[in-house]
Amino acid sequence: MSAIPYLALVSALAALALAMFFFNNVKQASPGDERMVFLMTEIQKGARAFLKAEYTWVSVFVVAMIVLIAIIVHPLASISYLVGAVLSATAGYAGMTVATMANARTTEAAKQGPGAALPIAFRGGAVMGFAVAGLALLGLMAVYIVFVTLLEHKEAFEIVTAYGLGASSIALFSRVGGGIYTKAADVGADLVGKVEAGIPEDDPRNPATIADNVGDNVGDVAGMGADLFESYAGSIIAPISLVAFATGLAADDIGDDALSLLMFPMAIAFVGMIASIIGSFLVKGGESTDSKALSRALHLGTNVAMGITIVATVAMAFWLFGDSDAFDQPIGLAISVIGGLIVGWALGKTAEYYTSDHFGPVKKIAAQAETGPATTVLSGISAGMVSVAASVLLILVGVGVAYWGGELAFSDDISNLSGGIYGIAVAAIGMLATTGVVVSVDAYGPIADNAGGIAEMAELDPSVREVTDALDSLGNTTAAVAKGFAVGSAALTALALFKSFEFAIAEAGGDLNLNVGEVDVFIGLFIGAGLPFLFAALTIDAVGRAATEMIEEVRRQFREIPGLREGKEGVIPDSARCVEISTAASLKEMIIPGALAVVVPLVVGFIDVDALGGLLAGALVTGFALAIFMANAGGAWDNAKKYIEAGAHGGKGGDPHKAAVVGDTVGDPFKDTSGPAMNILLKVMTIVSLVFASSFV
Amino acid sequence: MSAIPYLALVSALAALALAMFFFNNVKQASPGDERMVFLMTEIQKGARAFLKAEYTWVSVFVVAMIVLIAIIVHPLASISYLVGAVLSATAGYAGMTVATMANARTTEAAKQGPGAALPIAFRGGAVMGFAVAGLALLGLMAVYIVFVTLLEHKEAFEIVTAYGLGASSIALFSRVGGGIYTKAADVGADLVGKVEAGIPEDDPRNPATIADNVGDNVGDVAGMGADLFESYAGSIIAPISLVAFATGLAADDIGDDALSLLMFPMAIAFVGMIASIIGSFLVKGGESTDSKALSRALHLGTNVAMGITIVATVAMAFWLFGDSDAFDQPIGLAISVIGGLIVGWALGKTAEYYTSDHFGPVKKIAAQAETGPATTVLSGISAGMVSVAASVLLILVGVGVAYWGGELAFSDDISNLSGGIYGIAVAAIGMLATTGVVVSVDAYGPIADNAGGIAEMAELDPSVREVTDALDSLGNTTAAVAKGFAVGSAALTALALFKSFEFAIAEAGGDLNLNVGEVDVFIGLFIGAGLPFLFAALTIDAVGRAATEMIEEVRRQFREIPGLREGKEGVIPDSARCVEISTAASLKEMIIPGALAVVVPLVVGFIDVDALGGLLAGALVTGFALAIFMANAGGAWDNAKKYIEAGAHGGKGGDPHKAAVVGDTVGDPFKDTSGPAMNILLKVMTIVSLVFASSFV
Repeated sequence: MSAIPYLALVSALAALALAMFFFNNVKQASPGDERMVFLMTEIQKGARAFLKAEYTWVSVFVVAMIVLIAIIVHPLASISYLVGAVLSATAGYAGMTVATMANARTTEAAKQGPGAALPIAFRGGAVMGFAVAGLALLGLMAVYIVFVTLLEHKEAFEIVTAYGLGASSIALFSRVGGGIYTKAADVGADLVGKVEAGIPEDDPRNPATIADNVGDNVGDVAGMGADLFESYAGSIIAPISLVAFATGLAADDIGDDALSLLMFPMAIAFVGMIASIIGSFLVKGGESTDSKALSRALHLGTNVAMGITIVATVAMAFWLFGDSDAFDQPIGLAISVIGGLIVGWALGKTAEYYTSDHFGPVKKIAAQAETGPATTVLSGISAGMVSVAASVLLILVGVGVAYWGGELAFSDDISNLSGGIYGIAVAAIGMLATTGVVVSVDAYGPIADNAGGIAEMAELDPSVREVTDALDSLGNTTAAVAKGFAVGSAALTALALFKSFEFAIAEAGGDLNLNVGEVDVFIGLFIGAGLPFLFAALTIDAVGRAATEMIEEVRRQFREIPGLREGKEGVIPDSARCVEISTAASLKEMIIPGALAVVVPLVVGFIDVDALGGLLAGALVTGFALAIFMANAGGAWDNAKKYIEAGAHGGKGGDPHKAAVVGDTVGDPFKDTSGPAMNILLKVMTIVSLVFASSFV
Repeated sequence: MSAIPYLALVSALAALALAMFFFNNVKQASPGDERMVFLMTEIQKGARAFLKAEYTWVSVFVVAMIVLIAIIVHPLASISYLVGAVLSATAGYAGMTVATMANARTTEAAKQGPGAALPIAFRGGAVMGFAVAGLALLGLMAVYIVFVTLLEHKEAFEIVTAYGLGASSIALFSRVGGGIYTKAADVGADLVGKVEAGIPEDDPRNPATIADNVGDNVGDVAGMGADLFESYAGSIIAPISLVAFATGLAADDIGDDALSLLMFPMAIAFVGMIASIIGSFLVKGGESTDSKALSRALHLGTNVAMGITIVATVAMAFWLFGDSDAFDQPIGLAISVIGGLIVGWALGKTAEYYTSDHFGPVKKIAAQAETGPATTVLSGISAGMVSVAASVLLILVGVGVAYWGGELAFSDDISNLSGGIYGIAVAAIGMLATTGVVVSVDAYGPIADNAGGIAEMAELDPSVREVTDALDSLGNTTAAVAKGFAVGSAALTALALFKSFEFAIAEAGGDLNLNVGEVDVFIGLFIGAGLPFLFAALTIDAVGRAATEMIEEVRRQFREIPGLREGKEGVIPDSARCVEISTAASLKEMIIPGALAVVVPLVVGFIDVDALGGLLAGALVTGFALAIFMANAGGAWDNAKKYIEAGAHGGKGGDPHKAAVVGDTVGDPFKDTSGPAMNILLKVMTIVSLVFASSFV
């Protein structure tokens, strides 16, 4: 049983080997003609420049945190924090690098049809997927093995938890910074290009086109990767720290039952990783551009990986919990995990229902576009809000099933830890065990999107664009699944970390009173409910300001560069300047919202730890609701616009289309900046509180 | 000391006498020529028809509640519930009646200038103000005197609390139904009239104009009146029931200290009412249409009334708490009350800052209109969200000061009741003690608005419209103060009722565990956070559907009635049909959101009372945030549009203006339907839980 961390470590190494293999695969493909290589290199340069600048800024924050953790918590915890931060940044950088290599290669392969292009785009995404999952698990297992198994360090579990905080810090800044970057460039390119200058999307004349394509990579690839890195690591850390803090474990004295509880999450991570590796080999393209066939090809890998994980989870539960009298029905904990997986899947389906043009809500928004932009905006807002109620219900079902499964497994507490709470803590792993293949599919989206952009900018034959468009349209629905998992696991992980926080305070000798009837807890609850609104406002405003700078620059270039608008031979826009503007603006804008997430819980915690408990609870429920609202409203507007562009309600150029574009633009920062960052905000606040728990007392 | 309820009763009668006096004042003024009388009568008929239909529908709900309360709680409680409901409905009906009489009379008086018109509009509003405050206090004191003082009934305090539930039920339906009505008519009239047919606002050719004016009366007058009725009654009931349930009082055995605590809120209501009566006589118009002079004239009454209330509150605190050893520093409770008043005022100022065109946020939204509707919408959303953070901070300051003041007054609990909690409970009264004059000023707004509508429809000289416009523009800022009080008192009252709920469960022998660390409480918290989103979505959708019906009817009339669009002599639109449509649609649409507020807490409470506690806390903090967001975003868009119409950014008709109109339309259901109804939703849910508390155990 105690071999499990080593097995998980090996599976992580296997994932990294696979990432290398796919990387070579992608690298060997031809990137196309000179023009395409030029475009690819420009995008790559822009994305790298951004990530380097971002990591430079963030490193200041990381160093400050290291000092703080070293002084207040423990010097070794700051090392673990650093490992988490560095690996997360590495995964983001690696994934982004290959994504920006895969784009032109996908375009080139698209000349031969989807059968050649799909695997390249997918394998480009898979480098990201397995780099994220592999590095996250590798680092976590290394920290666990060193401090818990080998050193049996007194504060081993605080040190392990700090790893998660490192990952969260990078994720928060990547999501906020990347989200601002991508939307500033997107809005800037669209508003001046499509609306004012009347030139199509991705037109080479538009100075912001390169920045827009860079944005896809830093936001949707690097940002999403860091997000999933921290979600995945967090979902494994949450039950480990829960067990440790609830039972007051010392690393040198772990009883058999507690050991089983500690090993279970790692065992699932191990089987999930192996299953993901197997699944990833099953994704092959056919010759058809039919969306159903493509979708089947793409999802086969995920579905197989999940099936294997489910079966293996049941086996693991019986293996780990079957022998001890402390456990009544081992299947219970498998139910918790599988329940979590199903709820995550259902959350994704709910998101799809509210955001796909195959269903009522998006059709209704498109119909409302007939009466203008105001009704379009209103119907999107109400669709997003209704989806909150549906998602809350699903989360409650997930929490209920996970709790019930846990109680089934052990109804007598194992030193303070109830079966139900443990069940909730492991439920999130079910969703994220197959992170490797899920992220591969998710990262595929922006690669296909970029491939289309390159086809357009390089002025290739329209048939190429048709293939890339078919691949791209698939990307929009695949993102829904990953989103459902990210959101669902965020709620469950934060809940588990919140429980760990309670136990950690108690262990440190503190007397935590989380009764909402107490005035200080209620005040905390109020602050917690207000924070996500402030965070959303700050990020929306940031996008607005950055986009305005971009708009002015694009207008200036059209005005001052002779022949640019007319597309005169040899006249090229100053794309680099636009990339610089997006980079500078987004970095400047990410500081305040990012700092908020760390500073507020620390300040409140040192003043009144009960109020901090209220704050975390309030922020969790309100932030979850706001995150779902923003993500789904934004997605619904986006697809309502696409639905109209595909010919409904008068098609492109009509008044309903203009109204739908307004909805889409409102939704851009909702779904790509504020919404996704909100999930991480919740976890950063909780995990900061957990890591510093003992010092608040 | 025990004379206080009688004194308060007498002051309520005095308020009603004053309302009668003002009513006669208004009635004696001339309503103008035949055309004006016709328009006034049409608006009056429409408003009455709506209220009658609404009350008929609501009576079904009221009867169901009466049966439920009689069976589950106590038969006498259902009588008290009925009294609260009937008086609230009466106040709404009376206020609406005089408001629809005062509109044409204000127009007529405007021919002689603002000096004549201002007092008529104000006194029309004052009938509403004093009918609301007088009836609310009269009924509450009558119930208190009969059941507590005279009968000394065993369940006297449950019975008194049921009065508040009656008032809340009417308020909820009035706000939801009236809010849907007014916005459906407004949006319908604007979209087809101004945008499609290209005719000005309030043009007699527009079939929806009458319905729009009716909407002002049923939404802004009757809805707002019922809202303030319940807020005012609730703010007095909350501390009374808190004292009763915390100390486990029986009506036949009230100790001296507890009696002081019970009397204090009524004493403040008494002095506040007298102060309001005095203040209302000070509102006199001058000859200038200068907005500062008008504003000074209008606010003089409120400011004097508040000043008197503050001084008298200090006196009351010393009188009631000065003699007993149980109280350390009587001034403490005066601090709580005055702190509440100041925070309410500050909330109003915050709302003004975020929604008035004199300050940055609205100017920024107007500037963003230059880049189109999407950026207009986004900047309004972010302004609304930032205002949430500011308002949360203010509420926390209010809660903190009130708590501190209460602890200053008595640091040793008086049988379970801590000074701090009592301080919070009385803080809301400070804001609402002067309800009489505050509502007068608030109800003045729609009267002035209607007066302008009549001037336009009756095609009077433009100089008349200028005077009514000057009066009207004042109405927009005056509403901010009342809104601040309503929102602030809602948060504090709900908090106090929540504490009463805790005590009531304990008194009924239940064991309430409100630790957010428990899974059921957390689940409740989640449901509570999701509910306000669902409620907002339902009400926004309801407005959308009702507006669509209205739009279709207006289009039909322009299409089918020959000569209507061209304004041919003698051709009049079928306004009555539009009124019918708005009435039917809004009544149908108010049922589900209204029922939600009562059914959900009851269902959850009977399943798990801890979860209900979590639900109430979650709904309170999230609903408060969402209410502020929607109200302030909506107000900001509205005034950004007006700011542009006044000449900024190209003035009326330009592209920025069109973008601003989109923002305004998005904001309409935010600020006039969902936002205001949210406050009542929170209180209805809490007070339902409180009234049924003993049956959950």
